[in-house]
Amino acid sequence: MDAMLPLAHSAPEKATEDLEKLSISAFGNARSSITEHPLSADEVRKMTDYFHASMYMCLGMIYLRRNPLLREPLTLDHVKRRLLGHWGSDAGQSFTWIHMNRLIKKYDLDVLFVSGPGHGAPAVLSNSYLEGVYSEVYPEKSQDEEGLRRFFKYFSFPGGIGSHATPETPGSLHEGGELGYSISHAFGAVFDHPNLIALTMVGDGESETGPLATSWHSNKFLNPITDGAVLPVLHLNGYKINNPTVLARIDHKELENLFLGYGWTPYFVEGSDVPTMMQAMAATLETCVTKIREYQKEARDSGKPFRPRWPMIVLRTPKGWTGPRKIDDHFQEGFWRAHQVPIPEVLKDRSKLKELEKWMRSYEPEKHFDESGRLIPELQELAPTGTRRMSANPVANGGSIRRKLNLPDFRDYAVEVRTGGVTNSGSMANFAGFLRDVVKNNMDNFRVFGPDETESNKLSKIYEAGKKVWLGEYFDEDEDGGNLAYAGRVMEILSEHTCEGWLEGYVLSGRHGMLNSYEPFIHIIDSMVNQHCKWIEKALEVEWRHKVSSLNILLTSTVWRQDHNGFTHQDPGFLDVVANKSPEVVRIYLPPDANCLLSTMDHCLRSENYVNVIVADKQEHLQFLSMEQAIDHCSKGIGIWEWASNDKGEEPDIVMASCGDVSTHEALAATALLRTHLPELKIRFVNVVDLFKLIDEKEHPHGLAAHEYKAIFTDNVPCIFNFHSYPWLVHRLTYGRKGQQNLLVRGYKEKGNIDTPLELAIRNGTDRYSLAIDAIDNIPTLGNKGSSARETLRNEQIRAKNYAFHEGMDPKETEDWVWPF
Amino acid sequence: MDAMLPLAHSAPEKATEDLEKLSISAFGNARSSITEHPLSADEVRKMTDYFHASMYMCLGMIYLRRNPLLREPLTLDHVKRRLLGHWGSDAGQSFTWIHMNRLIKKYDLDVLFVSGPGHGAPAVLSNSYLEGVYSEVYPEKSQDEEGLRRFFKYFSFPGGIGSHATPETPGSLHEGGELGYSISHAFGAVFDHPNLIALTMVGDGESETGPLATSWHSNKFLNPITDGAVLPVLHLNGYKINNPTVLARIDHKELENLFLGYGWTPYFVEGSDVPTMMQAMAATLETCVTKIREYQKEARDSGKPFRPRWPMIVLRTPKGWTGPRKIDDHFQEGFWRAHQVPIPEVLKDRSKLKELEKWMRSYEPEKHFDESGRLIPELQELAPTGTRRMSANPVANGGSIRRKLNLPDFRDYAVEVRTGGVTNSGSMANFAGFLRDVVKNNMDNFRVFGPDETESNKLSKIYEAGKKVWLGEYFDEDEDGGNLAYAGRVMEILSEHTCEGWLEGYVLSGRHGMLNSYEPFIHIIDSMVNQHCKWIEKALEVEWRHKVSSLNILLTSTVWRQDHNGFTHQDPGFLDVVANKSPEVVRIYLPPDANCLLSTMDHCLRSENYVNVIVADKQEHLQFLSMEQAIDHCSKGIGIWEWASNDKGEEPDIVMASCGDVSTHEALAATALLRTHLPELKIRFVNVVDLFKLIDEKEHPHGLAAHEYKAIFTDNVPCIFNFHSYPWLVHRLTYGRKGQQNLLVRGYKEKGNIDTPLELAIRNGTDRYSLAIDAIDNIPTLGNKGSSARETLRNEQIRAKNYAFHEGMDPKETEDWVWPF
Repeated sequence: MDAMLPLAHSAPEKATEDLEKLSISAFGNARSSITEHPLSADEVRKMTDYFHASMYMCLGMIYLRRNPLLREPLTLDHVKRRLLGHWGSDAGQSFTWIHMNRLIKKYDLDVLFVSGPGHGAPAVLSNSYLEGVYSEVYPEKSQDEEGLRRFFKYFSFPGGIGSHATPETPGSLHEGGELGYSISHAFGAVFDHPNLIALTMVGDGESETGPLATSWHSNKFLNPITDGAVLPVLHLNGYKINNPTVLARIDHKELENLFLGYGWTPYFVEGSDVPTMMQAMAATLETCVTKIREYQKEARDSGKPFRPRWPMIVLRTPKGWTGPRKIDDHFQEGFWRAHQVPIPEVLKDRSKLKELEKWMRSYEPEKHFDESGRLIPELQELAPTGTRRMSANPVANGGSIRRKLNLPDFRDYAVEVRTGGVTNSGSMANFAGFLRDVVKNNMDNFRVFGPDETESNKLSKIYEAGKKVWLGEYFDEDEDGGNLAYAGRVMEILSEHTCEGWLEGYVLSGRHGMLNSYEPFIHIIDSMVNQHCKWIEKALEVEWRHKVSSLNILLTSTVWRQDHNGFTHQDPGFLDVVANKSPEVVRIYLPPDANCLLSTMDHCLRSENYVNVIVADKQEHLQFLSMEQAIDHCSKGIGIWEWASNDKGEEPDIVMASCGDVSTHEALAATALLRTHLPELKIRFVNVVDLFKLIDEKEHPHGLAAHEYKAIFTDNVPCIFNFHSYPWLVHRLTYGRKGQQNLLVRGYKEKGNIDTPLELAIRNGTDRYSLAIDAIDNIPTLGNKGSSARETLRNEQIRAKNYAFHEGMDPKETEDWVWPF
Repeated sequence: MDAMLPLAHSAPEKATEDLEKLSISAFGNARSSITEHPLSADEVRKMTDYFHASMYMCLGMIYLRRNPLLREPLTLDHVKRRLLGHWGSDAGQSFTWIHMNRLIKKYDLDVLFVSGPGHGAPAVLSNSYLEGVYSEVYPEKSQDEEGLRRFFKYFSFPGGIGSHATPETPGSLHEGGELGYSISHAFGAVFDHPNLIALTMVGDGESETGPLATSWHSNKFLNPITDGAVLPVLHLNGYKINNPTVLARIDHKELENLFLGYGWTPYFVEGSDVPTMMQAMAATLETCVTKIREYQKEARDSGKPFRPRWPMIVLRTPKGWTGPRKIDDHFQEGFWRAHQVPIPEVLKDRSKLKELEKWMRSYEPEKHFDESGRLIPELQELAPTGTRRMSANPVANGGSIRRKLNLPDFRDYAVEVRTGGVTNSGSMANFAGFLRDVVKNNMDNFRVFGPDETESNKLSKIYEAGKKVWLGEYFDEDEDGGNLAYAGRVMEILSEHTCEGWLEGYVLSGRHGMLNSYEPFIHIIDSMVNQHCKWIEKALEVEWRHKVSSLNILLTSTVWRQDHNGFTHQDPGFLDVVANKSPEVVRIYLPPDANCLLSTMDHCLRSENYVNVIVADKQEHLQFLSMEQAIDHCSKGIGIWEWASNDKGEEPDIVMASCGDVSTHEALAATALLRTHLPELKIRFVNVVDLFKLIDEKEHPHGLAAHEYKAIFTDNVPCIFNFHSYPWLVHRLTYGRKGQQNLLVRGYKEKGNIDTPLELAIRNGTDRYSLAIDAIDNIPTLGNKGSSARETLRNEQIRAKNYAFHEGMDPKETEDWVWPF
């Protein structure tokens, strides 16, 4: 294996010296790394007209509800009564879009546009309208004056069009409401799409976020043979809401070094003069596309993957470009004041309304739109056609090109269980065999993502089918179990944000995947998961969007086995975050053993448009259900385990319930203790796999009806419920249930330390002894027998505690425990 | 103002050419940017001995429970029965610590050590022990053989010492359980500590996280006159748990460019040969410290702040350095297998035990520890003394050096309220006046942090006292309301992670501060806040730790005013995350108006060791309480608003309750509607400021006793509770309360769109009409009167909806609403 990858090239060929001297606040004639002039005068004129038509539309969207083509003098009555929208980054984005149109036509490219800067949707929406897609998708926004009027009016209007590239936006798979994920989404979309180029606008504000800052390193995980390319355009717009951006205020050399350091080849296009900028951008973008094709050809012809220093563009244009430089005495273009509505005073000040009108007319709408209000044919010709239009790229409607997974029969991977609670096995390691074959059967369609934990999480069996993608340097040691490969199916970087972003991009562009992570650190991506839930929920309301695969999050290294790593590694609260999202899109499963895990994962991998969260420990565990029992149990999602119960269908004295594998293990041990010490007790044992079974059927499609819930938990029998996560999640899910107050829920309550598993459980009251004692304390009729059993149990607990304290590990008997009946 | 800051210098002076050619996997003799040999042979010998003593201890901590100095041949009985701990990054960290010791002594430096790499505590702990601090703090871990034995045994042992730099670790303010925050914590600690140097070990795994990747840009926010310096040592250890690190597998030039691009001057120290590495590190570290002092002197002597390209070190040593290169046929040193316990087989394999013994003896413990088991005096002398010891730096026990805030009297900022619910005012803009004076009174002791939202959040008045710190370039436009300054009190970067990290570092090192953020995006730092909560909770258990200031998070731009920004900007669920943390450390306040906000913030700024979350809208609102009433209400945290109630102390027909300002506004409007349309109804109006009042007193120190709760909510009267956040949080907090089932809670339920505020509320059932109708539906005795009022209200609601739909804004009457009684 090569010790060093060939270095493609490390600096732009024609670095203009001027660039280094460019005062970073001064705009004017373009200066750029590539100084050719590929456009004819006629091309410049047409592209400028198209650009102006788009800029005109951006203003129309912000201001107008009537008179969309300014065929009458502008009056207050034409203006929206509440002005909303963002002007700041529109010009730079639209400018880039239009330049890519030229190259798509010239080279028949397959390009996806990813809009990173916040609130830049007018650029995307206006181009979608100009190339006809918006009207095809939303016929009432027709390509005529009335259609244009509606398009303007309903932008940022109740029930209307959002100011981000929301799911309603044709051609979008990246909303950008929360900033920071444009690059990782783009990479996700191009993995295994070898001909796709993701033209990705990256905001300079967005660039300050952590997730974006690390996502530039995604280029070490992209294979030039099997994957497409990401072409980032860092939009040095200069300002955020009220502040300059960091990257726009460091010197030129620093900025160039930064991106060379990230492994890219930055090409600069800087200025504000539209005609010269047209030439500069045309030349530079074409160079970048050509470079991309060359690298791909080199790798594909030779069959030897390498890591090119892929091209990227730094586009420095003033914020609010093409707008007025000053309004009254205040800077506007090239300052943060251009961020949102540029002249909000139009509603109150007639002279400002005049100013707006003049500005809008400067884009010459009457020249670009014909009598009917449609873009003139000469300009229409500038856009590509059909699915080559970026706003119609099917990749952005990933469900439409999705192929189903070819899944092996999960039952073939079953763990043999003849009697529940007797044999030990590693559920996760066993599942890894199934997962390996899922990988093997879907080598261009399914990937596994994780922040350097796949092996630690006992899933390394999947490397037999697909190794870890690695385009960094290789060392000799890597042969000794490194499991790295240029082409692989496992994606690992120590950034939960990047992993999640890649997976989201991969799924939204029509493929399948799974993220595995330590449970405590999944909170790092709370907000990303929230946003993804919102995306797929809204997408359900959009008729033309096809369903995508579910986003599967497998959590392991769970709280109850994070004893030795201590308090910082203990947090099962991700479930609370997920449970807040819409019931239409979230599902939470806690399979208690290996066969239930297989059945659950098979179900999740087949499902559509959900976020599935699956919690399962990676250590060895007692196994409870045979495959047949597991399928039955998981398809119900909740059930009474008859084999562990002795209530024989009568009303029990106590219900022992559990949700989560370690929790089930302890609850069942508690049940065994109770049945041993108090054999006359009638105990019902209940297990929950599908957490939303607990909630009322009116609140969640999986919820149990009242009579179903009663048939399991009764209305009046006390229930000791051992829960994997924070106990109050069960309280809130069962709110309103009759008999809710009979639930005594035990779970994690922020009581941790350096511990053994047993110690940690005792500290939180979730160990077998505490649970059994809870049960005794909640059955008032037990009397002396209860007190005596209670004392026995307490002594056993103390003995176990002492052992752990002296030896630094749990006593053997707690580890070798088996179900005795 | 200077348009360009002077560039300090952009490349190391003596870049050794060899460096670029260094095969990045090959180790051996040191190669470094600085090639001087400042150490005498004797110094090298002593420092190597000290280093070996520390390495010996790291192994002792992982393996031994008896025979700590190997005075007997090692047997299985001496070894812990459960082997836990991490060896991988210990050597590099300890090596760096020891080198800094030399310079602290030579230059009398004030240095804080921040340990970024995961599980690197043995390096920190062993050094703390060697320099005597550990025994001073924990006398039972005395500086003798028995103390050493205990020290070893209790590492990663139940109830013992953690493998991160936990709160129990002297000299630590950064635990590093979750990775990514070492640099931002370090910057937080040195702000306003002009003489402090934070020597910050950054793991190369950690470096892949988003938060770390962006935090390098903190150097644009550090003032060389008023702040200290951060000296990062990027520890290119090469591996994470099971993967190589990205930064260790890119070529040398890329790595150098990356850090030049981040604005640092990287100095390289690379190799594994201890004697030559000793010289290289001594020379390089000294150069860095000298550079730091030069830059500081230049700025301080001239009074002109500038942005130096601060020095940093890239330290490339093999993972598990000084351990065996191979064990059996598998790579160990310089590979990921050295991450955790290097030879776990010692428990089962006698030959492996021999191998371990040989390795441990190679560090020659008998040479470094005297008869009693104490480090020999010759080596003791290498460490600094007193508080100059990094493990005794008082900054790491920030509470011990904390000065109280000098707070103005918040009552002086009161909004005049003669009658509740009549006058409008902006609570946040009003609070900004108080905050400005807090800044003014505490110019070296208090900072405000935020991700580019301080102005948007209506807090810009604070710029009158302290502007936004900015060490990037300045443009002419900045004079036009840019509010930037070299020295300021407001810290803004578009990275919630960096803001939170800075604030945590600032507070933990003994100062005070506040973060302001949009509510929806605070989820980005869920995990950081979780970790901070865990830190301060554990710190409470550590006797020698003094209390620090609370970490205050002010959330605004809240869900109910994120109508126009749409669904992605709507998420009030941070409260659920916080409510999961220990009741000892979390507090949640939702002040309903301006005077309550003042009273709440005053309380929060005075408080200690909490995470306070305060939720308040930034728009204009009706004001309800006079300052006197507000103080009374906030000190109770919950109360009946007599002026809005007409139950006159009798049992009401309905309780109308609210928590949150917009929610209160609507609940009160609903109450007015009910009283207007159904004047015979007896209504009690309740408001909650302190959310934890709802929980039982046994669960949280702020919780109400049962009789107190009953006195407000009754046991049996229906209550319509309008809540700011997701409704089920109220259900879980009131779990177990008598009468809990009478609560009908309305709140946000993931129903959003592009809306007006009224529309958004109607969609979620939290508007005045829906609430009033809910009340009617829950009073069975109303009969026909109820039906008729219900119909009237429904018609009013439809009229308002239609207006919003047609005009794109809410009808005036809903905005101009006043309390009519």
